[in-house]
Amino acid sequence: MNQYQPHEHYMRLALDLARKGQGYTSPNPMVGALVVADSGAVVGQGYHQRAGGPHAEVHALQEAGAKAHNATLYVTLEPCCVHGKTPPCTTAIMEAGVRRVVYATQDPNPAVAGRGKETLERAGIEVLTGILDAESAHLNRHFNKHIVHRTPYITMKTAITLDGKMAVASGASRWVTGEQARRDGHRLRGEHEAIAVGIGTVLADDPLLSCRHGYENIYRHPHVIVFDSSLRIPRNAALLRQQEVQRKVIVVTDQTMADTSSAKRLQEWGAQLVFLPRSANNKLPLPRAMELLYRDHGITSILVEGGAALTSSILRAGLEDEHVIYMAPKLFGAEGMTWTGALGVDTPDNALALEFVSVHTIGKDLRIEARRTRGKQI
Amino acid sequence: MNQYQPHEHYMRLALDLARKGQGYTSPNPMVGALVVADSGAVVGQGYHQRAGGPHAEVHALQEAGAKAHNATLYVTLEPCCVHGKTPPCTTAIMEAGVRRVVYATQDPNPAVAGRGKETLERAGIEVLTGILDAESAHLNRHFNKHIVHRTPYITMKTAITLDGKMAVASGASRWVTGEQARRDGHRLRGEHEAIAVGIGTVLADDPLLSCRHGYENIYRHPHVIVFDSSLRIPRNAALLRQQEVQRKVIVVTDQTMADTSSAKRLQEWGAQLVFLPRSANNKLPLPRAMELLYRDHGITSILVEGGAALTSSILRAGLEDEHVIYMAPKLFGAEGMTWTGALGVDTPDNALALEFVSVHTIGKDLRIEARRTRGKQI
Repeated sequence: MNQYQPHEHYMRLALDLARKGQGYTSPNPMVGALVVADSGAVVGQGYHQRAGGPHAEVHALQEAGAKAHNATLYVTLEPCCVHGKTPPCTTAIMEAGVRRVVYATQDPNPAVAGRGKETLERAGIEVLTGILDAESAHLNRHFNKHIVHRTPYITMKTAITLDGKMAVASGASRWVTGEQARRDGHRLRGEHEAIAVGIGTVLADDPLLSCRHGYENIYRHPHVIVFDSSLRIPRNAALLRQQEVQRKVIVVTDQTMADTSSAKRLQEWGAQLVFLPRSANNKLPLPRAMELLYRDHGITSILVEGGAALTSSILRAGLEDEHVIYMAPKLFGAEGMTWTGALGVDTPDNALALEFVSVHTIGKDLRIEARRTRGKQI
Repeated sequence: MNQYQPHEHYMRLALDLARKGQGYTSPNPMVGALVVADSGAVVGQGYHQRAGGPHAEVHALQEAGAKAHNATLYVTLEPCCVHGKTPPCTTAIMEAGVRRVVYATQDPNPAVAGRGKETLERAGIEVLTGILDAESAHLNRHFNKHIVHRTPYITMKTAITLDGKMAVASGASRWVTGEQARRDGHRLRGEHEAIAVGIGTVLADDPLLSCRHGYENIYRHPHVIVFDSSLRIPRNAALLRQQEVQRKVIVVTDQTMADTSSAKRLQEWGAQLVFLPRSANNKLPLPRAMELLYRDHGITSILVEGGAALTSSILRAGLEDEHVIYMAPKLFGAEGMTWTGALGVDTPDNALALEFVSVHTIGKDLRIEARRTRGKQI
């Protein structure tokens, strides 16, 4: 048995509260807060419920009322000290008479990081930091990426066989993985701001790209982004049926398409367009596309669901932050379609290097989380 | 905490003893035995050390001496009741005055299964069975296969990337996995009677196929089997250097090669040949080859180390009992060489279906155990 760690205990409860906001807080982080009296009793709790609404601390302090006086506030993120859409939390904390603030992670926003702590300490409030820091940072990895880099967090979702195939030779891929893995894939959709696919996937599979399997009751439908340099997306594409699914459909295309009738029609059908000049290699410049999707459309996180061309472009550019790979205990054989396209790897030492973050079984399949290695892999 | 289970406790000790024989008991199983007095004290222990030597029970009873009288004998396998290379263990048990025998697994040999138990019970000895049965059966899975089916247990060893590639486009494969995974591969070699490769692998990689990384001090070098229908194996092939590595080299080839000078030279170089008529598909008939390797060469277990042609033939024939897959967190991309050759899978539903048995990390890689599903996979 571990020794009893009261700070970790309360912070874990605060993290559980924070998670309740999943899918609704973007572009803000998920934050949970707990007011604990000297007796150890929890006298107030709250979480950031939706962007534009009160912060977690405010909910928790309101619930605590007068009991917040001389109490400890546990919060998963450094309290803010600036006026945004709501007044600064540091002011609310001081006014409530809180004696001590314990938080997990410093605000990653370089413009304000550490200033919440300073403000509280100047007011004579004891501040303790770094409790379950890694867990909190992991929970808000989407936020921590975009707030610093001004570009979306990118997750690659892949369903493959044990021999790395996403489809048999004909292109048929229904289904590679089992029911439980596919359901988990819908949760993953709900946890992202948008789903991205290449036009090849739209033409081949005609996916709706909505969040289903019950997760539509928990999450909003993510927006849809299609990379389609020649605007080949057809009117009857399932993903254009916005009457069924409330969300944006954003088509990223070549800037020479700007005044075409295809572009006008697509806008009439309800899609929004992002125009970009092609790169020297005749492809859409993905890093720039991501910046524009963030700046102009508020897309803070993207789940990339293929196909091979888009996946390879992202891998070659090194843009992805995380891989979630559902791996079925099946073999399609050498004639099947490999997950990625060509990557230009000429020797084993030049392989594109990832690292495993976690591996779990899900039904009969594996769920593998991986990410690019930061340094060189040995 | 689990409730204290004395039978399981002692049987686990007996299984640990059994494992000490790993690599030396074939064609016999690994067996461990423990004599436990009424006080709970272990008064004798033993294990089957090598084929032809005394059985585990005999070692344990000898160590116990007079203390075996009225004691309990724990043994991982049903005691034998027939004269083989040694007298029957049931006789030794009765003569020692043992009161009770507890064993894990019934003898899988259909000719004698259950007869040891009967013999003991007729002599008035209490018999308890099935304690840690699954663990014992797993430990002796090689034995349990060959003694029933008269053909070797077949393990496929594979080192691949996360996208299912065993080499880059040029064929270069050094190295896919890290040091720890490669070392574990040598342990796997030591645990098998023989390593099998196709001639393509010999010509491309010129492997020595010995047991190294320290495991040569624990295990014997396994024999080497090369599937080479046209006898293309060259004189300077590393695996023909028997002066360095004491073992058999067995070349399985087409029967039309029987009187060729290639065959004679190969025998002069110390290799043994197995001749077979080709099947209708112009390939060596693998099931028959396995039977002959068992019958004429005493090969009870084979570790198949590739390449793609041999692997695919075995997979298509459904001959393998177990897969050990070392998976590196790397991508070689679509231009890399897929682990298997073509498998003729035309739809996802017709995929070759495995099931995951275990998944562990080993260094930066994964070690995945899998096997063919017995029934239909959903």
